[in-house]
Amino acid sequence: MFEAAEVGSALDKATYKQELPGLRSELLRVQRDIAASGLGPVVIVGGVEGVGKGEVMNTLLEWMDARGVEAHAFGDPTTEEQERPRYWRFWRVLPPRGKMAVLLGSWYTDPIVDRVFGRIDEVSYEREMRRIRDFERMLAFEGVPVIKFWLHVAKAEYEKRLRKARKDPEKQWRISKRTLKFAKRYDDFRPVSEEALRLTSTGVAPWHIVEAQDERYRDYTVATTLVRGLREALEEAGARRAGEEQQVVLPDPPTVNVIRQLDLTQQIPRKEYVRKRNRSQARLGRLVRELHASEHSMILVFEGPDAAGKGGTIRRLTAVMDARFYRVRSVSAPTDEEAAHPYLWRFWRDLPRRGHVTIYDRSWYGRVLVERIEGFAARDDWQRAYAEINEFEAQLGEAGTIVLKFWLAISPEEQLRRFEDRETTPYKQYKLTREDWRNRKKWDAYEAAACDMIERTSTDQAPWILVPAEDKRLARVEVLRAVSKRLSRELT
Amino acid sequence: MFEAAEVGSALDKATYKQELPGLRSELLRVQRDIAASGLGPVVIVGGVEGVGKGEVMNTLLEWMDARGVEAHAFGDPTTEEQERPRYWRFWRVLPPRGKMAVLLGSWYTDPIVDRVFGRIDEVSYEREMRRIRDFERMLAFEGVPVIKFWLHVAKAEYEKRLRKARKDPEKQWRISKRTLKFAKRYDDFRPVSEEALRLTSTGVAPWHIVEAQDERYRDYTVATTLVRGLREALEEAGARRAGEEQQVVLPDPPTVNVIRQLDLTQQIPRKEYVRKRNRSQARLGRLVRELHASEHSMILVFEGPDAAGKGGTIRRLTAVMDARFYRVRSVSAPTDEEAAHPYLWRFWRDLPRRGHVTIYDRSWYGRVLVERIEGFAARDDWQRAYAEINEFEAQLGEAGTIVLKFWLAISPEEQLRRFEDRETTPYKQYKLTREDWRNRKKWDAYEAAACDMIERTSTDQAPWILVPAEDKRLARVEVLRAVSKRLSRELT
Repeated sequence: MFEAAEVGSALDKATYKQELPGLRSELLRVQRDIAASGLGPVVIVGGVEGVGKGEVMNTLLEWMDARGVEAHAFGDPTTEEQERPRYWRFWRVLPPRGKMAVLLGSWYTDPIVDRVFGRIDEVSYEREMRRIRDFERMLAFEGVPVIKFWLHVAKAEYEKRLRKARKDPEKQWRISKRTLKFAKRYDDFRPVSEEALRLTSTGVAPWHIVEAQDERYRDYTVATTLVRGLREALEEAGARRAGEEQQVVLPDPPTVNVIRQLDLTQQIPRKEYVRKRNRSQARLGRLVRELHASEHSMILVFEGPDAAGKGGTIRRLTAVMDARFYRVRSVSAPTDEEAAHPYLWRFWRDLPRRGHVTIYDRSWYGRVLVERIEGFAARDDWQRAYAEINEFEAQLGEAGTIVLKFWLAISPEEQLRRFEDRETTPYKQYKLTREDWRNRKKWDAYEAAACDMIERTSTDQAPWILVPAEDKRLARVEVLRAVSKRLSRELT
Repeated sequence: MFEAAEVGSALDKATYKQELPGLRSELLRVQRDIAASGLGPVVIVGGVEGVGKGEVMNTLLEWMDARGVEAHAFGDPTTEEQERPRYWRFWRVLPPRGKMAVLLGSWYTDPIVDRVFGRIDEVSYEREMRRIRDFERMLAFEGVPVIKFWLHVAKAEYEKRLRKARKDPEKQWRISKRTLKFAKRYDDFRPVSEEALRLTSTGVAPWHIVEAQDERYRDYTVATTLVRGLREALEEAGARRAGEEQQVVLPDPPTVNVIRQLDLTQQIPRKEYVRKRNRSQARLGRLVRELHASEHSMILVFEGPDAAGKGGTIRRLTAVMDARFYRVRSVSAPTDEEAAHPYLWRFWRDLPRRGHVTIYDRSWYGRVLVERIEGFAARDDWQRAYAEINEFEAQLGEAGTIVLKFWLAISPEEQLRRFEDRETTPYKQYKLTREDWRNRKKWDAYEAAACDMIERTSTDQAPWILVPAEDKRLARVEVLRAVSKRLSRELT
């Protein structure tokens, strides 16, 4: 694979000098087109340590308008990064639409290094590569084309260059201990990198291998390839927008309606409720205190029809939690910064730290519920969301975040009773909006979408828990118990 | 001062039970009014360790709608916090308009604790209190009313309660080593806290001392006082909006025009320029590499008329910097999240980490330049900005951030020449907008505002450097040299 990048490609000074002004103004031009587009491209500069990645990055930033592009290098994670899933630090630096980011070090670094040093096996390595493919495809769909360069030099040349750099006072500061340690493993890095490139060179994000022996050839090739890549991304985005299906197709009724199968007639008498609730709350209180001191964090997701009792149930949970450690997020329209990033960015940006709890009153599942039904998301977008959400929750799980998802189920008749109650009780009126009445008319569609969601996003690690909520008291006790049960399992 | 909070105030159970429902719905009502307003209040719960601050915080969050309020406690700073000025962590948690935050621990904690343990002297302590007064006044003006509670119990009662808590399995987890260490110093904390309260009980943000012996009395008093405080803040905000002066008064010509005093006729021949630039860049490159490895960070601010050459000068600086360590920020309209916070929030949010450089192409000085001239900021707002900016830069300096501010000066005739050049050169046309021509008509007003700005915000630590930029080459060399000079002074 790297053979074509070991032929000594070079660019003579005269050609370089002649081509450069045109290339630079072409770079600026495409950057302006990006600024006006809905895209926020990411450029990855990869290669073994010491191959010249930093120099390429510097050249790109020098040639472009620095106000529209940011460089990010990833050293040791900060404590704030350590307390979140591994990909958090990458989500943090995704550029908003109209801007670009150049990454030195990326989601490839850890798997490749870990594989070379034997810290992960072949199976885990391939799983990481699969994760990367999914991640980059998602980014491409979300307006973040990923353009990837792998700088390569043949071994003899690499070693010569390193020796030279160590003697050059202008360059030696770049040669870290890490570089020297990795340089010794050149022969191990080569096959592992080759495999990484092979497994992740996809239609949406192909690798560009660039021979990095001659600086002029290297920089010129990277820049021209970048321009071409950005132009293609702009064209594709234009074509996708033109072909976007705006029509909403309401979902078919599910073959198995798991929600309707729930027995909504169950009730719990008041006295029994008070006793059970108090006992469950006391237990939960103890467990949550254990959680605060643990390596875990917790996310609770609440979905269900309007007036299903999400808010009241959440209050019964937070009543026994310490305010310093929990927050309740009510998900509505995104801010403009959120809208300028991939869909899940707003949820990634405030993942709880270790020991903390975040409770979602509606959540990322909005994409496959309201956004699907109301046509806010294109069909392709909500369809791919199932897999993306599963992946998101899998990463949370790997990072020690306990995820519980509750669907509070009520009948349409009960919803009507609660709406009418809200309408006639002065201090409840603010809870009822015209939109609630509008949503109610689409009950069947929402229910069918919910059944699809439950089927496709119930995983071992983050299963949906369906709660009959016709009787509020019953629902509260069930939720309290479910959270305690899971916590007690995870914390021992 | 605390005597009135040592009288054993209590609330009997019957009254409490009778008052509670009304109080809670009143709390929810005022929270809804806040959500609809332009305010983002902050509630501080202070008092010695173990006095019940956490309990009050929990009660408030239980009684309010948790979706509109967040609790924040400040433990040891994270590494990301340690690399920025001390107030960074507080700026991070300021709520956006419409939301609220309850803080346990605040900007009061460090000065009080440091004073008690003798780590700062009386003078530094009073300076910190002055800083707090300014900070809270600024917040109030910016739509963030600060409502402050100080919980107090008499010593005998305090010690009794601590003994009891240590035996109670439900409470003992709250009693940290820190609490016990501080509890021994009750007598030292008392006078220091009293002084803090006295020095920071201002009209805009008075302290409310609450006797915390009886839990019912404590929670009821805090909640009713909070409702009253929020109502007052809402009224004041309404009155301020009504009375806001919208008329723009263009500044008088300055008595001493420091900008016109510059000799703009100086020039530097091309050959000499190349030699000097290369030498300056080599020196700067070395110094910036030293900066990367140091405890310092650096912020460079560029202001000046349109077409003064800011972009080109910045490119000569970044040419010798490593892309991983610098970023260039071009300041234009704020995002909606930025607009929902106090003015300086957008600059606080991305302060450079240690070793890093941020270069501003226009900056926070927009408030006293374009916002003043165009009437985007009310008169009171831009007038108080001078002091707020000086304070901001002082805090940067204390945290080891090197701040340099450049004013690039050109004549109106030179600007016209450059505009015309942009108009007729195809690849420069995008740089020239209709707004540039519009701004040009207000040249004198901008210049007078700039003179005011230079006069009021040139501090020892972050002086304005006025650069004759009629000759671009001269300007670039001067800026390169000034940055190197300052770096070399700070890094040795």
